[in-house]
Amino acid sequence: MATTTAYVASAGTALPGEPVDNAVLGKLLGVSSEWIDLFVGTRTRHFGWDLGTGEVRRTLTDLAAEAAGQALEGAGLDPADIEFVVLATATPDTLLPTTATQVADRLGLNYLPVHQLQAGCSGAVQALDLGRALIGDGSRAGLVIGGDVTHRHLDIHRDRSRMPTEELVNYVLFGDGAGAAVLTAEPTDPVGASGGGVALRGVLNHFAGLGRPPGQTVDWYGISDRRQERPLLSEDYKAIEESVPVMAAEILWDLLGLVGWTVDDLDYLLPPQLSQRMTARIVEQLPVPPGIREVSCVTDTGNTGNALPFFQLQRLLPQLRTGQRAIALSVESSKWIKSGFALEKC
Amino acid sequence: MATTTAYVASAGTALPGEPVDNAVLGKLLGVSSEWIDLFVGTRTRHFGWDLGTGEVRRTLTDLAAEAAGQALEGAGLDPADIEFVVLATATPDTLLPTTATQVADRLGLNYLPVHQLQAGCSGAVQALDLGRALIGDGSRAGLVIGGDVTHRHLDIHRDRSRMPTEELVNYVLFGDGAGAAVLTAEPTDPVGASGGGVALRGVLNHFAGLGRPPGQTVDWYGISDRRQERPLLSEDYKAIEESVPVMAAEILWDLLGLVGWTVDDLDYLLPPQLSQRMTARIVEQLPVPPGIREVSCVTDTGNTGNALPFFQLQRLLPQLRTGQRAIALSVESSKWIKSGFALEKC
Repeated sequence: MATTTAYVASAGTALPGEPVDNAVLGKLLGVSSEWIDLFVGTRTRHFGWDLGTGEVRRTLTDLAAEAAGQALEGAGLDPADIEFVVLATATPDTLLPTTATQVADRLGLNYLPVHQLQAGCSGAVQALDLGRALIGDGSRAGLVIGGDVTHRHLDIHRDRSRMPTEELVNYVLFGDGAGAAVLTAEPTDPVGASGGGVALRGVLNHFAGLGRPPGQTVDWYGISDRRQERPLLSEDYKAIEESVPVMAAEILWDLLGLVGWTVDDLDYLLPPQLSQRMTARIVEQLPVPPGIREVSCVTDTGNTGNALPFFQLQRLLPQLRTGQRAIALSVESSKWIKSGFALEKC
Repeated sequence: MATTTAYVASAGTALPGEPVDNAVLGKLLGVSSEWIDLFVGTRTRHFGWDLGTGEVRRTLTDLAAEAAGQALEGAGLDPADIEFVVLATATPDTLLPTTATQVADRLGLNYLPVHQLQAGCSGAVQALDLGRALIGDGSRAGLVIGGDVTHRHLDIHRDRSRMPTEELVNYVLFGDGAGAAVLTAEPTDPVGASGGGVALRGVLNHFAGLGRPPGQTVDWYGISDRRQERPLLSEDYKAIEESVPVMAAEILWDLLGLVGWTVDDLDYLLPPQLSQRMTARIVEQLPVPPGIREVSCVTDTGNTGNALPFFQLQRLLPQLRTGQRAIALSVESSKWIKSGFALEKC
């Protein structure tokens, strides 16, 4: 079992444009803001595309480069210090070139490994896991990035009055965004944070979907099949609602076992961020001490997929004091991945 | 710089159906088999879809699971011995679940990291690079897989008589296939090979596209943009023809420098496999000794993208004798990645 400790030197995030609230979104979709509140509880989200015309104004490359640039600056590092890039997304701008290489180009990086993970809600953790392994393998500093954009999967020109509820939910659940973190082999003092490094004590990254049907499918069209009427997004929300809280508790125990902590050692909890309602339900059922501080972002950002843990990280880092511990949990419902990480301020 | 040595315990490959020769393909496309020979020189390729109806018979998941199962068997390992999966592809069956998790499910794997890289011709090397790092980080054995399928990007229902040449080339250049290798921390004796392990002495995996326009673009449609007429595949074949031979030579020097060998130490060369013609042109220009043995597959398999190096590996492993050395070169022209690896039989 891998045991390398890497350090989180900084986090950066990017959201496109102004927040879109439930009143505006509800009007566009022909539903009430109360309905959105009831189903997902999320208050605002951001879109890189124009809600009126569908025109794409900010791509995943734009957002990921902004977030990564911010993380670089936060770590006080130059592009030349970065020895690898791992970017995770479910919604790449193109299949090739990868968004990861486009981001590397924007940041002025060259002659280094640039990897792109195809992933869902566990992608940020998978990127952190690989980043940690690359640090363990000898790299001194690297960028991990995660992000998703919705413009290809939400179609404002569709007849939304005839949309079934389970499809309409996607329009209110997701948002666009990207996040990033700099990982280092030695503890560094993040700019703007109190002194000391933040150690990534352990990462859990376990496929756990053997024999289980997918909870979520995100498909794509090519030239040959684009006239088919098959839907590209489908979710088994019943399976998700049943499984995610249980899996979140399992991840908590697995991670605590991995790093040798108990729940009473925890100061901060970064729970899964499917939606505000779902996060609240998950936290309620977790066996954590009542005084634990929750760090969530989904109410403001919407579900930004691969970006979510970086938004939570960015909120956590300035709060974390020496000796304090945090644990982050993430469940990928596509084919069921249990993931999370444990942080400690040195 | 990472210096872990991992060992290649086995390789496996999968091709769908019968080989499709230039006479059959030429008839379908309305071009002569001589034209295909002139442009790409490839003799046969395989398709997982029916050339008459377009019906998909074998998916990437099918092919990757077959190749990976073969590699597992070749290494004499059980699924329970495998501690990670890294699968690389440009053409995933769905965006989520990942093809990597579907393959893990087929193989009976559970509770392990399952990563999917979005990548082109360098994907197999990127997967080997991450596999090597994961071995370096403490894993004992893992599966690396690469593969691509063409059914979404080649549309037999299009009017092929009006297709421009640069588009027609895609129909004769690419093929479907998958490959896999088992990496181990300790030398193992591959089943069917002469005794001794095959050491992965070094992997080069360098994004080298800073400030350069892409040589190849592979795009996808979502629900919102599928009625657009933008093409999904585009190549700058002039840039590719100019750059790839030069970059192949650069990779050779970089890799030799990395492992401390000279060209005279090499027994086998696994050159880039864009097409038979292109491979011949690259090899001609490489400063390798005349006696070096070339291991290529593209004439028989077509360009199978992320699968190619595994087909070469599978041909190499039974030939390699103790003390012999091989070097593999791969150029990703999407956003210009220099990649390759160096092998030595212990």
